[in-house]
Amino acid sequence: MDAFDNDFRDRLELLIKWRRDVRRFRTDPVDPALVAQLLELADHAPSVGLSQPWRFVSVDSARARARIVSSFERCNQAAADDYSDETADEYAKLKLEGLREAPVQFAVFADETTEKGRGLGRRTMPEMLRYSVVTAVHTFWIAARAAGLGVGWVSILDPDDVHAAVGAPENWSLVAYLCVGWPLESSDTPELEKAGWEQRQGAGTLRRVH
Amino acid sequence: MDAFDNDFRDRLELLIKWRRDVRRFRTDPVDPALVAQLLELADHAPSVGLSQPWRFVSVDSARARARIVSSFERCNQAAADDYSDETADEYAKLKLEGLREAPVQFAVFADETTEKGRGLGRRTMPEMLRYSVVTAVHTFWIAARAAGLGVGWVSILDPDDVHAAVGAPENWSLVAYLCVGWPLESSDTPELEKAGWEQRQGAGTLRRVH
Repeated sequence: MDAFDNDFRDRLELLIKWRRDVRRFRTDPVDPALVAQLLELADHAPSVGLSQPWRFVSVDSARARARIVSSFERCNQAAADDYSDETADEYAKLKLEGLREAPVQFAVFADETTEKGRGLGRRTMPEMLRYSVVTAVHTFWIAARAAGLGVGWVSILDPDDVHAAVGAPENWSLVAYLCVGWPLESSDTPELEKAGWEQRQGAGTLRRVH
Repeated sequence: MDAFDNDFRDRLELLIKWRRDVRRFRTDPVDPALVAQLLELADHAPSVGLSQPWRFVSVDSARARARIVSSFERCNQAAADDYSDETADEYAKLKLEGLREAPVQFAVFADETTEKGRGLGRRTMPEMLRYSVVTAVHTFWIAARAAGLGVGWVSILDPDDVHAAVGAPENWSLVAYLCVGWPLESSDTPELEKAGWEQRQGAGTLRRVH
């Protein structure tokens, strides 16, 4: 079962390089069976103590989605206001989310009090529970991309707003809000790089401890 | 470039299902060129605002490694002491890390004060910086597995000990400690499941908000 050959590894490399944070979606629906398959795969993500603390909430109602859009608009305006005039103008031009277009949307939480895993591995680093949710999101993301589906992770939101909008239990903490749908385009260049906001750099940060 | 065909997707599914948290390593060395290639790929992970805040520190010295082992032993004993007698016995039998065997080890930090990304996307959710580091670790992990390499994420450590052991800058926070090497065996069943500590469950957590 170690037989991931060079052809597979080359294509995995392409997948990693072509995965994008998508903000421009077509509005046509996504087959629920495909979404279910991706969620099933995400359930194989690594988790501390095998706790599988991820909770994907599908946000479908117009009412809940309107509350998310409203939270984004408020947080995005506050973010713009924090920049100097010139940068604020640049920031305002960025397309940072596809909340109005993406046909499938998830609020993804960490169940902070799950007994699954029996606490193993999170005594000194309780944040491992939330990190486990991130690996599930990332697993969903790359599997979605392999199926041609785009995913956008929106963090310009007030977690309390999202919590309230979807009626999540108190002991769940928001880790990610995901927009999912067919992308308008595909590219190997990050959207923020194309827009001139920031550039991707190669690995130059490795340090050795001698 | 959307041509990730069914054969590729089937093998990606296998990769996700066969990825393991490895704690039993062979001690023979890993080609540094392979490790460099995996780190280069990890640099393509998603990051908030294209901040790329991950800092991989290669922990090579016997002295630094001894400090890590010592931190693990102390934290692991404290964790065992927290369980009732019966569970503590069960816990004590688990092999939870390969710190003495793994030829390659990384302490992975988030640079909390990086200016890269210009703060975009982390005003209301500053934890996005650490979550970005998690996606880099996960990218490294699955690419390593595709190359037949095992990765184990050790969280039974005091982050302050790791910080001191590798002499990390003050503004870096520890996200992960990774053991990397050729695994003694491969399996599609999590080690904690084989040991009877916890069982993997299928996705049953999807909720819909109507």
